[in-house]
Amino acid sequence: MFDNKQRTDINELGEFGLIDYLTKAVEIKELSTVKGIGDDAAVLDFSSKKTLISTDLLLEGIHFDLRYVPLKHLGYKAVQVNLSDIYAMNGIASQITFSIGLSSKFPVEAVEEIYQGVLIACEKFNVDLVGGDTSASAQGLVISVTSIGYADADKVVYRSGAKEGDLLCVSGDLGGAYVGLQLLEREKNIFIENPNIQPDLEGKDYIVERQLKPESRKDIVELFETYGIQPHAMIDVSDGLASEILHICKASKVGCKLYEDKIPIDPMTYETAREFGLDPTVCALNGGEDYELLFTVPQDQYDKVKNQLDISIIGYITEEAAGCEMISKSGHVHPIQAQGWNAFKQSSNDGSTA
Amino acid sequence: MFDNKQRTDINELGEFGLIDYLTKAVEIKELSTVKGIGDDAAVLDFSSKKTLISTDLLLEGIHFDLRYVPLKHLGYKAVQVNLSDIYAMNGIASQITFSIGLSSKFPVEAVEEIYQGVLIACEKFNVDLVGGDTSASAQGLVISVTSIGYADADKVVYRSGAKEGDLLCVSGDLGGAYVGLQLLEREKNIFIENPNIQPDLEGKDYIVERQLKPESRKDIVELFETYGIQPHAMIDVSDGLASEILHICKASKVGCKLYEDKIPIDPMTYETAREFGLDPTVCALNGGEDYELLFTVPQDQYDKVKNQLDISIIGYITEEAAGCEMISKSGHVHPIQAQGWNAFKQSSNDGSTA
Repeated sequence: MFDNKQRTDINELGEFGLIDYLTKAVEIKELSTVKGIGDDAAVLDFSSKKTLISTDLLLEGIHFDLRYVPLKHLGYKAVQVNLSDIYAMNGIASQITFSIGLSSKFPVEAVEEIYQGVLIACEKFNVDLVGGDTSASAQGLVISVTSIGYADADKVVYRSGAKEGDLLCVSGDLGGAYVGLQLLEREKNIFIENPNIQPDLEGKDYIVERQLKPESRKDIVELFETYGIQPHAMIDVSDGLASEILHICKASKVGCKLYEDKIPIDPMTYETAREFGLDPTVCALNGGEDYELLFTVPQDQYDKVKNQLDISIIGYITEEAAGCEMISKSGHVHPIQAQGWNAFKQSSNDGSTA
Repeated sequence: MFDNKQRTDINELGEFGLIDYLTKAVEIKELSTVKGIGDDAAVLDFSSKKTLISTDLLLEGIHFDLRYVPLKHLGYKAVQVNLSDIYAMNGIASQITFSIGLSSKFPVEAVEEIYQGVLIACEKFNVDLVGGDTSASAQGLVISVTSIGYADADKVVYRSGAKEGDLLCVSGDLGGAYVGLQLLEREKNIFIENPNIQPDLEGKDYIVERQLKPESRKDIVELFETYGIQPHAMIDVSDGLASEILHICKASKVGCKLYEDKIPIDPMTYETAREFGLDPTVCALNGGEDYELLFTVPQDQYDKVKNQLDISIIGYITEEAAGCEMISKSGHVHPIQAQGWNAFKQSSNDGSTA
């Protein structure tokens, strides 16, 4: 992951030296950034818009496994995971802070790789890195990201706005990140048993990328703007479709019908799930980490969403008393249950979500 | 620290259950909070004011030692340390997010104690808890706090505004938190050698509190408002007076003269430092964690600051070429050097700053 010949001990730089070294490449581009890195706090100006704030913690051994997660990807993903929460409010992300706790096993070059991933994500999504904290860690690698964004007051979309009759929609496809993780875990275990065998990920680029390098759906928020679509409720899919549907229904005090045959699953996700003896639908429902946007729109916006290539209508919202149900491909009705990832029940080396 | 008879395993609640349990006591009071905990992001409204953001990472074994830091104090201090950065911009803190990574050794009751400290700090400083993240940790306790605040554009104070001739001022007194830490470390070591000996902290309340339960100086920002004092430059004292003076001078491209005999040191700090064979001035210069405000004001504001009981004038700003110097009690001139805390050079069980 980093060239061990070039190995600068962090102690040589010290905390302030490390911060200077890492942030020398940081540029401020967003109009709303008044002052970025270098003072006690960043100063931002959102004029008449609402300010949006979200934060995530990513811990080694829980959310990521450095045995197969490249450091640059880790930095990139840490940012994406957090920006996704701002887009899930129908907002535009504009700044992040990035904090990192590092054990002494990391040379400066390794930290720089993580920052490269962070800065690539910032560049691509027009987000300024405006602050953070850098510390030693007595144990594993610790990352904390806070995203800041903005939206017009009348554009903000909560989880709680779904109404009976709304169409239930999701962007992209689901289950890929989870199946990609199974593939990486399998290759890791083969490698542990026999280090001479190289990982066999050929032809599986898409689902491996879904796991290692997810893309938050800023483009969907932009699509809403372009087509005049105003969702009633929205959430990002981090813990699996089932868990997120239940969040929206609980917050909105509604029920829903979900059609199994409408859930968008990529052919590679489908085939690879089958190879692992997994039900692709279960992977989509409970796998998590897809970072797609799940949202509801009133029926009069059907014409605006039906022809969007990257949006699937997967069901509709009912009254609360009708419950949350999935109609299976065979026509059976099942209650939707969240069996998504639980960080507190997971073994420490199975990092299946962030 | 918590009653072991009442020990609820976090697994019994799961992540969402734990979040519900911990946040049931959270109230929203700030006018600028539109939406707090419970969605993908918090929504805030600062209308025409600037938004301020600061973040800190606190790691077990680096920033705190659970052998003598009570959990409630830890939660309280984590918030104070971070609010201090907003006050150091001459802003008003209005919201925080609080993220926590927990190893399985912590029962729910322990986590609740940490949150109690967080909420006491929020209540006292009129700050809303609006979000966060809760996760398992494969190793030690991980805390990440982000503070959000606001200020009028013309009131924001940067590190970079100091001008030649400015008075150099500091609030409160310095060195107490560091000397308090020495005391706690000594008693910990005595206890490790002989667990029958109870800690002897009698009569040392003030400096022990300075270490365990620091108070950020919101009152000084309010005092500025009341008396019409507008500092040119400001920073909070987290790494020690010397380090912070150098930050201001570097950012402002100025030099300074600091008078040793003007540095405010509490008598208990002074005496206890002497007991440990430490120079009290060195404790103030390099100890850190005092969370006082260091600032400069133009000379024409001398009348406004000279009679403030909680503000000391400790020197003045010079041209850059004159360097940063301290005039000792004996009249000798020494260059000011930052020998403050370096998280990357510290052994893992000596948590002297946050």
